[in-house]
Amino acid sequence: MAAEARLDLGRRWRLGMVEAIWGEHKSADQIAAIVAAMHQAGELALVTRIDAGKAEAVARELPDLPLVFHASARGLSCPAPPPADPGQGRVTIVSGGTSDLTVASEAQLALACHGVAADLVIDVGVAGLHRLLDQLEHLNQARVLIACAGMEGALPTVLAGLVPQPVIGVPVSVGYGVSTGGMAALHGMLASCAPGLTVVNIDNGYGAAMAALRILKGGNSPPESEML
Amino acid sequence: MAAEARLDLGRRWRLGMVEAIWGEHKSADQIAAIVAAMHQAGELALVTRIDAGKAEAVARELPDLPLVFHASARGLSCPAPPPADPGQGRVTIVSGGTSDLTVASEAQLALACHGVAADLVIDVGVAGLHRLLDQLEHLNQARVLIACAGMEGALPTVLAGLVPQPVIGVPVSVGYGVSTGGMAALHGMLASCAPGLTVVNIDNGYGAAMAALRILKGGNSPPESEML
Amino acid sequence: MAAEARLDLGRRWRLGMVEAIWGEHKSADQIAAIVAAMHQAGELALVTRIDAGKAEAVARELPDLPLVFHASARGLSCPAPPPADPGQGRVTIVSGGTSDLTVASEAQLALACHGVAADLVIDVGVAGLHRLLDQLEHLNQARVLIACAGMEGALPTVLAGLVPQPVIGVPVSVGYGVSTGGMAALHGMLASCAPGLTVVNIDNGYGAAMAALRILKGGNSPPESEML
Amino acid sequence: MAAEARLDLGRRWRLGMVEAIWGEHKSADQIAAIVAAMHQAGELALVTRIDAGKAEAVARELPDLPLVFHASARGLSCPAPPPADPGQGRVTIVSGGTSDLTVASEAQLALACHGVAADLVIDVGVAGLHRLLDQLEHLNQARVLIACAGMEGALPTVLAGLVPQPVIGVPVSVGYGVSTGGMAALHGMLASCAPGLTVVNIDNGYGAAMAALRILKGGNSPPESEML
Amino acid sequence: MAAEARLDLGRRWRLGMVEAIWGEHKSADQIAAIVAAMHQAGELALVTRIDAGKAEAVARELPDLPLVFHASARGLSCPAPPPADPGQGRVTIVSGGTSDLTVASEAQLALACHGVAADLVIDVGVAGLHRLLDQLEHLNQARVLIACAGMEGALPTVLAGLVPQPVIGVPVSVGYGVSTGGMAALHGMLASCAPGLTVVNIDNGYGAAMAALRILKGGNSPPESEML
Amino acid sequence: MAAEARLDLGRRWRLGMVEAIWGEHKSADQIAAIVAAMHQAGELALVTRIDAGKAEAVARELPDLPLVFHASARGLSCPAPPPADPGQGRVTIVSGGTSDLTVASEAQLALACHGVAADLVIDVGVAGLHRLLDQLEHLNQARVLIACAGMEGALPTVLAGLVPQPVIGVPVSVGYGVSTGGMAALHGMLASCAPGLTVVNIDNGYGAAMAALRILKGGNSPPESEML
Amino acid sequence: MAAEARLDLGRRWRLGMVEAIWGEHKSADQIAAIVAAMHQAGELALVTRIDAGKAEAVARELPDLPLVFHASARGLSCPAPPPADPGQGRVTIVSGGTSDLTVASEAQLALACHGVAADLVIDVGVAGLHRLLDQLEHLNQARVLIACAGMEGALPTVLAGLVPQPVIGVPVSVGYGVSTGGMAALHGMLASCAPGLTVVNIDNGYGAAMAALRILKGGNSPPESEML
Amino acid sequence: MAAEARLDLGRRWRLGMVEAIWGEHKSADQIAAIVAAMHQAGELALVTRIDAGKAEAVARELPDLPLVFHASARGLSCPAPPPADPGQGRVTIVSGGTSDLTVASEAQLALACHGVAADLVIDVGVAGLHRLLDQLEHLNQARVLIACAGMEGALPTVLAGLVPQPVIGVPVSVGYGVSTGGMAALHGMLASCAPGLTVVNIDNGYGAAMAALRILKGGNSPPESEML
Repeated sequence: MAAEARLDLGRRWRLGMVEAIWGEHKSADQIAAIVAAMHQAGELALVTRIDAGKAEAVARELPDLPLVFHASARGLSCPAPPPADPGQGRVTIVSGGTSDLTVASEAQLALACHGVAADLVIDVGVAGLHRLLDQLEHLNQARVLIACAGMEGALPTVLAGLVPQPVIGVPVSVGYGVSTGGMAALHGMLASCAPGLTVVNIDNGYGAAMAALRILKGGNSPPESEML
Repeated sequence: MAAEARLDLGRRWRLGMVEAIWGEHKSADQIAAIVAAMHQAGELALVTRIDAGKAEAVARELPDLPLVFHASARGLSCPAPPPADPGQGRVTIVSGGTSDLTVASEAQLALACHGVAADLVIDVGVAGLHRLLDQLEHLNQARVLIACAGMEGALPTVLAGLVPQPVIGVPVSVGYGVSTGGMAALHGMLASCAPGLTVVNIDNGYGAAMAALRILKGGNSPPESEML
Repeated sequence: MAAEARLDLGRRWRLGMVEAIWGEHKSADQIAAIVAAMHQAGELALVTRIDAGKAEAVARELPDLPLVFHASARGLSCPAPPPADPGQGRVTIVSGGTSDLTVASEAQLALACHGVAADLVIDVGVAGLHRLLDQLEHLNQARVLIACAGMEGALPTVLAGLVPQPVIGVPVSVGYGVSTGGMAALHGMLASCAPGLTVVNIDNGYGAAMAALRILKGGNSPPESEML
Repeated sequence: MAAEARLDLGRRWRLGMVEAIWGEHKSADQIAAIVAAMHQAGELALVTRIDAGKAEAVARELPDLPLVFHASARGLSCPAPPPADPGQGRVTIVSGGTSDLTVASEAQLALACHGVAADLVIDVGVAGLHRLLDQLEHLNQARVLIACAGMEGALPTVLAGLVPQPVIGVPVSVGYGVSTGGMAALHGMLASCAPGLTVVNIDNGYGAAMAALRILKGGNSPPESEML
Repeated sequence: MAAEARLDLGRRWRLGMVEAIWGEHKSADQIAAIVAAMHQAGELALVTRIDAGKAEAVARELPDLPLVFHASARGLSCPAPPPADPGQGRVTIVSGGTSDLTVASEAQLALACHGVAADLVIDVGVAGLHRLLDQLEHLNQARVLIACAGMEGALPTVLAGLVPQPVIGVPVSVGYGVSTGGMAALHGMLASCAPGLTVVNIDNGYGAAMAALRILKGGNSPPESEML
Repeated sequence: MAAEARLDLGRRWRLGMVEAIWGEHKSADQIAAIVAAMHQAGELALVTRIDAGKAEAVARELPDLPLVFHASARGLSCPAPPPADPGQGRVTIVSGGTSDLTVASEAQLALACHGVAADLVIDVGVAGLHRLLDQLEHLNQARVLIACAGMEGALPTVLAGLVPQPVIGVPVSVGYGVSTGGMAALHGMLASCAPGLTVVNIDNGYGAAMAALRILKGGNSPPESEML
Repeated sequence: MAAEARLDLGRRWRLGMVEAIWGEHKSADQIAAIVAAMHQAGELALVTRIDAGKAEAVARELPDLPLVFHASARGLSCPAPPPADPGQGRVTIVSGGTSDLTVASEAQLALACHGVAADLVIDVGVAGLHRLLDQLEHLNQARVLIACAGMEGALPTVLAGLVPQPVIGVPVSVGYGVSTGGMAALHGMLASCAPGLTVVNIDNGYGAAMAALRILKGGNSPPESEML
Repeated sequence: MAAEARLDLGRRWRLGMVEAIWGEHKSADQIAAIVAAMHQAGELALVTRIDAGKAEAVARELPDLPLVFHASARGLSCPAPPPADPGQGRVTIVSGGTSDLTVASEAQLALACHGVAADLVIDVGVAGLHRLLDQLEHLNQARVLIACAGMEGALPTVLAGLVPQPVIGVPVSVGYGVSTGGMAALHGMLASCAPGLTVVNIDNGYGAAMAALRILKGGNSPPESEML
């Protein structure tokens, strides 16, 4: 039963992205083994969906590695993300409420791990429209916008009707009744009457970040030296 | 097998509403029999969900009755609705696009049958927000607002965040993919982050009108003389 | 990552409603910060979906604030709700069983926070119809009715066939099998054959209360002095 | 490819029921072949879900057989059903509206094919409760009740709370929006708070009739002579 | 907020059934209050869906009452069920596997509370058909059959094809993947090709028992003296 | 906009299967172009889901090609299937009713196109179990069994509990209510308590045939000469 | 009932996009009125989801306007799209099969209406992987990729694992059984293990084109002179 | 209430498979009783879905039996599986990621209990295609392939397009948002465009193993001496 993990170390070369380690369904042992292998290979490791307890267990197994836990994003990186490269363009992440913060922070962390600066603008839900309109000038200066929303998920629709930039919607699994699990928000974003809004899976802050990165990179297969 | 229809003629006395005849799953024969019975009983009859062809067939069976077909609402009334009673308060019906017009018109017709004036404000979808904001002062003068929307159904949410009146959302079954059949709009309205928005079944313009009527009537069991 | 919450303090002025703080997906820290900010701004704060443990944690962080925990409604207010203003009209909240009590109490508390009196009539499920019929005269004196029901959710349908007032249905997430999570009750209320019944999201007692408030207020943008 | 149909002619002996031929997905040719084989074997044949056009096509292929088309039930029998045997007990079939008539009639026809008398009581929907209460004494005299309802499907729930007999609920696929296809009615009946209500598939009038027959027969494997 | 529970004590007189108290969403306090009230009124009380811990808590609050906890049925009765009345006919409850035992036992207990004897035949799943066929003669002697099954839920279908008695299917929420929660079993039973199978909600052993009771009672409103 | 179709002509060499042309969403023009290209390349072409009208239109465009329409399978082949190779082993296809015949025939045709003999055994539904048990000896002689069933889909479950061979379940989209579209049958087969039953998509007779072919071929990449 | 359409003519100025007219739920009259108004205002009009019959009806109403019908895209433009501007970058649209061609063509047409060149690469489904790998070098030269796929929808996942550009997945509503309507493809794309894939609604070729346009435009609010 | 378990000890003789005991919904007591009975009957017992805690409890009840807990497969066998019989052919189990390991291991263990050797090849997800292509020669040597995948579940599709062997897809319930519970993977595999892929229920490693065993055994009812 000697099944060994096969890391996709070519991903950085091929896609310009590090492979994220999805922590939710893995044990601390499994995570530690993968992080150690990536560190050994000279790669930044990013673990998503990992709570504080499991992160500590990983740290105990890897006492000599430069692990950093990012609490609001439920993420672990090894080492800390590099300084942002201002030449890459700016991403702005907006969210409808405090409850969406974890997902928005995961997107911010994933971009940071690739040297991209991203700022958060929260509590701009559409039930109090003026809060969003007040931020419009600021939002218009981003190269790409990521909009996180739970409940009915109308924020990305309204936003994409106001600005010409790429807008990536991230449905968030907060809510109850028909919005439990984020399906109402997901369907609302997909059904949007605003033209050119794209969507990722529910709670997939990491995926939205990688979509933004693909846009920023401009489509040229990046030489390795540009990264991290 | 002699099963006779039992009309709920007490509904007008009990609830202050005429019983609408849902035309979709009934034959022209069945509809004609019910309309004739209501006319006989001195009641206005309103048939909803009836297309022009079936309406003509009903008219051929009842050549002496004052039937009126309302094309944009897919409705048939007998006789024509009474003149509006200005003392009842005004209802405003808004919709996101031309495709929602049938449902909005059904609501308007159902209110007219009870002597209530209602005006339509269409094409105020949230992907071009200024069209809605331009109408705000007008909307604010209604006693009750009915908001019809398909696709992601965000219009009632945005509206209910802007005005203090009762807002009744009507999901509309236009759309494709995840919005086919109106479920995305329905769930979006139910999951709304705007406080106090209520919802009726998909395409239920008649139901929204009756809900508005309940609000206008003020909760006193109306004496018969007030109606029609 | 310095993302600050943006309170919608204009909501009371715009809509005549206080912004409720949805406690379920927020930490005690996040809730305490928002409650403190609202208190600072002179606003009554209402936290919904908060259990006794989290409420105590909030209270420990804000020892000097007049917090009140409402156990049966799972709600926290700061300060206690104001005395009811009898001029606003009465709301009656009915429910099918003891299991619906939390949702019914949330609606009652939310109305109390706006100075509106609401009484509860419970255990009037439709499988023992006489219990409902016995209360009919009492129910008929309310200005607005809120009907909470789980299982098949038939109570609002039967009720809206008996009385002419606005009836707001609240599906409740009690039940098992096909009624798990409240979807059977929700669909039953939306599909209702009773005219003019409106519906809010599953378990959304707060939303039903705000809908009732919109009806009571009569559609005139209320001057600030009328509130709380 | 010589695949021949295998009739379950033992079913009458084993279960006391004739095998119904479900006409919807079969061609007129296929139906005619089965009816002829059953006639040859001395069995009454009952075809359900067959429209007038297909029934005529079957009749053209079998000019010498005593076929009878039952329009309101969309059924074809060969020969006509036998006279009712009053000793078997009475079944009463109730329905909420004219739109449920086809399903109710299918149940009535299927019982008639087994010599059981069944009467129809229609238009007793729960939004006008008095219509149902007026029939209560009559309903109480049946040995088994079959209740057909579309929309929210509350009729069987209310009925089973009023009478002690077996009540079999049949959801009907009339309705729109959330009740399209009958799922809201089905779930409403299954989730019912009334004790001891049983349910069959949507539109399954035939199945409800056979369930009633099982109850009437009393559980003794019937000798052949008792049937038809 | 003085909302008192309204017991439906007329149910026994009206329907010949005691009102079961659904224990899942109620606190021990709420349950104890209802049991005490029923005891006071001279009624047997049956609490379903109650685990050992909550049952003990109820017992501590009502030390003087003759409470009996039925572990395999997750049920609590006060007092113990009466001796079975052999004149009422026998019910046989079959199940596909050990995992369905709780639901089957709930049905057995609910019948016992009404003086009806019911025996259990378990582990007769359709993947080993001979186990079911071996029991056929025994099953054929029951007046009513209740068949509990999870997974694909085929047991009631096969059974109803073999015997002429009433068969009531109870889907059970054991299983994983597509059978999680019992929906595959429920749909399989409703879609059954066996004629006259009826179905109750998932895990609703109590409901199946009450349906069997309605059949056994024969449709005559029972005089009170016949019960318990 | 000159987009040309790219045929996967290597599939026969790689997988030992011809590429089937799914006819449902293609025009007669598109189908004719693909069939001509395959004929040109020396490959047998198999078009599935094509009705008689569209097949005739294709034939009119390709008057010189040896097209054969297979009515009961809704399939078109060019040329006729080769004679069966008895050395490949036998497949038996069973179905619950006449309504499943189209799907069963599609599987039979697809196997014939690869030189595999398959016989049909129909009308062996589980509601009349003896019909299936009577065929058991015959079924036991097949190398692979394909079981097609609509409604509750229990046939493959019962079959796989009786024989040790590979059993491939094909859900069929006949039925109504909860079995509309075949989802109840699909879920029933996936949830089956019989060990080692595998399943393909609803109505996918072609897919079941190719799965059987993979089993018959024995896993050795077949030399081209063995095929057709 | 004089409800007039409100065109969002500011959309081109605000977002750099023309407002598409969704033709499916509109009558020829309604479409002609909107096209005429846009022509009057000097805007290119693009009608999507319009079949040949309805397009001809529109043309008959507007004999003097330069209407062009695009058959494979089911689209109507007025006037013809402008010549492509090579400076805007290239978009490549790939699809799994001929059946996806309509959706792919809609995306191509919508880009053409904004002066963007897009080429189609079809029949590169993942069941014959070499067809996709053969095109890799070509695909790598696009600035943005749009991938259309029905059935299981795996094409965008595989593609996004091979190239670093933005990949926009468009689920297509071809398929049967579980893939009917495109939900399996949609969920497959959203659940994708490839990082940074974004998705639009089922069949939404227009939306994917607008998302690509947002990426190409680079986030600067475009001066009007750059368009069309 | 003396309901005894009926073991299907004939299954090994009839199907060549031992009956697995599904541990999830059974208590340690119930499991121990069944294991003891099988041991007594001379049969190997395999318990699936059992965690370490419950396994220990079983071991405490059966101190004298040769129980073996298989941690990565969550399985318990009594006694240890027999040595592999090389003559039976080899099965290869592939999986997309470390998170699928439990399901893959369950399949491996179930095969081992029948004397079949199976090797695991993990981390060959389709987002890094080269990892799969690198293993192609190895995979091609198996007699049957089992492919486990969560998320979008594309691995079996890609694999079945590359090799001619039987491929059995096992959807795995890892993932979030639309892939929660494994439905996206299940639907992706059923909707697959690769010909002849078959599927089992979500997480059903045991079922996939039994399907592989049916293929390996070759369809001859095995004499008892060949087993275990």
